Amino acid sequence: MSTPFAHPITVRLHDTDAAGRLFFAHLFRHAHDAFEAFMDALELPVDTMIRSGQLLLPITHAQADYHLPLRHGDRVLVQVSVADLRRRSFAIQYAFRTNQDALAATALTVHCQINVDGTAVAALAPELKTALQSFT
Amino acid sequence: MSTPFAHPITVRLHDTDAAGRLFFAHLFRHAHDAFEAFMDALELPVDTMIRSGQLLLPITHAQADYHLPLRHGDRVLVQVSVADLRRRSFAIQYAFRTNQDALAATALTVHCQINVDGTAVAALAPELKTALQSFT
Amino acid sequence: MSTPFAHPITVRLHDTDAAGRLFFAHLFRHAHDAFEAFMDALELPVDTMIRSGQLLLPITHAQADYHLPLRHGDRVLVQVSVADLRRRSFAIQYAFRTNQDALAATALTVHCQINVDGTAVAALAPELKTALQSFT
Amino acid sequence: MSTPFAHPITVRLHDTDAAGRLFFAHLFRHAHDAFEAFMDALELPVDTMIRSGQLLLPITHAQADYHLPLRHGDRVLVQVSVADLRRRSFAIQYAFRTNQDALAATALTVHCQINVDGTAVAALAPELKTALQSFT
Repeated sequence: MSTPFAHPITVRLHDTDAAGRLFFAHLFRHAHDAFEAFMDALELPVDTMIRSGQLLLPITHAQADYHLPLRHGDRVLVQVSVADLRRRSFAIQYAFRTNQDALAATALTVHCQINVDGTAVAALAPELKTALQSFT
Repeated sequence: MSTPFAHPITVRLHDTDAAGRLFFAHLFRHAHDAFEAFMDALELPVDTMIRSGQLLLPITHAQADYHLPLRHGDRVLVQVSVADLRRRSFAIQYAFRTNQDALAATALTVHCQINVDGTAVAALAPELKTALQSFT
Repeated sequence: MSTPFAHPITVRLHDTDAAGRLFFAHLFRHAHDAFEAFMDALELPVDTMIRSGQLLLPITHAQADYHLPLRHGDRVLVQVSVADLRRRSFAIQYAFRTNQDALAATALTVHCQINVDGTAVAALAPELKTALQSFT
Repeated sequence: MSTPFAHPITVRLHDTDAAGRLFFAHLFRHAHDAFEAFMDALELPVDTMIRSGQLLLPITHAQADYHLPLRHGDRVLVQVSVADLRRRSFAIQYAFRTNQDALAATALTVHCQINVDGTAVAALAPELKTALQSFT
């Protein structure tokens, strides 16, 4: 996969609010769904990691910029890429593109690998680092 | 479409709670997503109806039965069918089947057609009635 | 406490949808918040139960009836009472009353006590049964 | 009100995920609830603004930093203050403090005032500017 990973979504009724737009916090839910689909594609599913308890990746930072209102029924492609890859952490970038290829929003999440007891790891798990490297 | 309409979902991290299961209320969110996908397939998209304001279908009743816990990462097929079709209302039935074909949960939503001013309609819109009839 | 337990809520922007009403599934989220507040008041907090793992109460059934649309900014009182108390399960009833004392919605959740391994308990925990009895 | 506005929350079951922590996106929902409570206190309720359609304040940017895991049952105070006040926009800062006064998370939302047709306003509404100024 040399092109960015893409996750299609449709803005559903529960995503919108009385102002008729996607409620801003729900963009982060969609970003995380796209992240989980991305990790599934890398054969490192987040559910398996949490269940086995060997590889925890809590989010330490999240941000989003909203350029265009997203409305009920809009078809959006969430493009996922690796924005940063560090010793103990990495950043995932999300571009929300409408089916007219307009950039409606961008988001970023920073994930930090920790041990089960909450202490910092010496370095990212090798299989995780290798998998992410091909998307930087 | 003679077979029931099916909408695939994956149980994502935000669907689960600290007890490690799908939080019960989120089943209804997935049911409504399946309903919206069903209406899209019938070429009666809910977003267009709400936007045009000519056909409002508020939910008057909802219920669900939970048979098996759904967990993070589970792949589920939501089968949608029309359980009841009345003069001014209809009921949609949802069966949540795991990829081992176990029935994890069922849900039902009752939708009532009203006018924009909130008053009852004389009868369901003909195009809606016709479309739903083929799924009863 | 001889009167029903009451939990005040305000309908916030994220509760509403593009149709300008409370999205039906969010009523169940508010019902469960009211249930948790009720259990806090009974000194049987749900979080402690889940954390200690000794007393699990999964929901086996949920239902709601929607009488009046709830809109952004509405102040609502959720009245909680025990609708049914059985050997291994109990039902909680919720009445959503507006500040004009109109009954906007009702909901019901059925909770079943199970062991940590998922098997049925012989009977509800005595402290739980005693606490709930005073609200029937 | 010379001290920052404070909005108390309890981390409820639906806020948490299978990793046993507050799901990161839900922090933004709580931040917005705190913002709405803050605007209620300023007698500029968001619901009235959206309903009247005269004063629209879409969020153009949101960010959060997560310092400590928040868990089911945690009591948290959300302190709201005005971080920035510009010609057409303003930024709201949120500090999530545990009842041991630890700073669990911070968040920021940037709101931009627009006209109903989506065009930029010349300047923030005077009553809004005046109200926010006392919290900078």
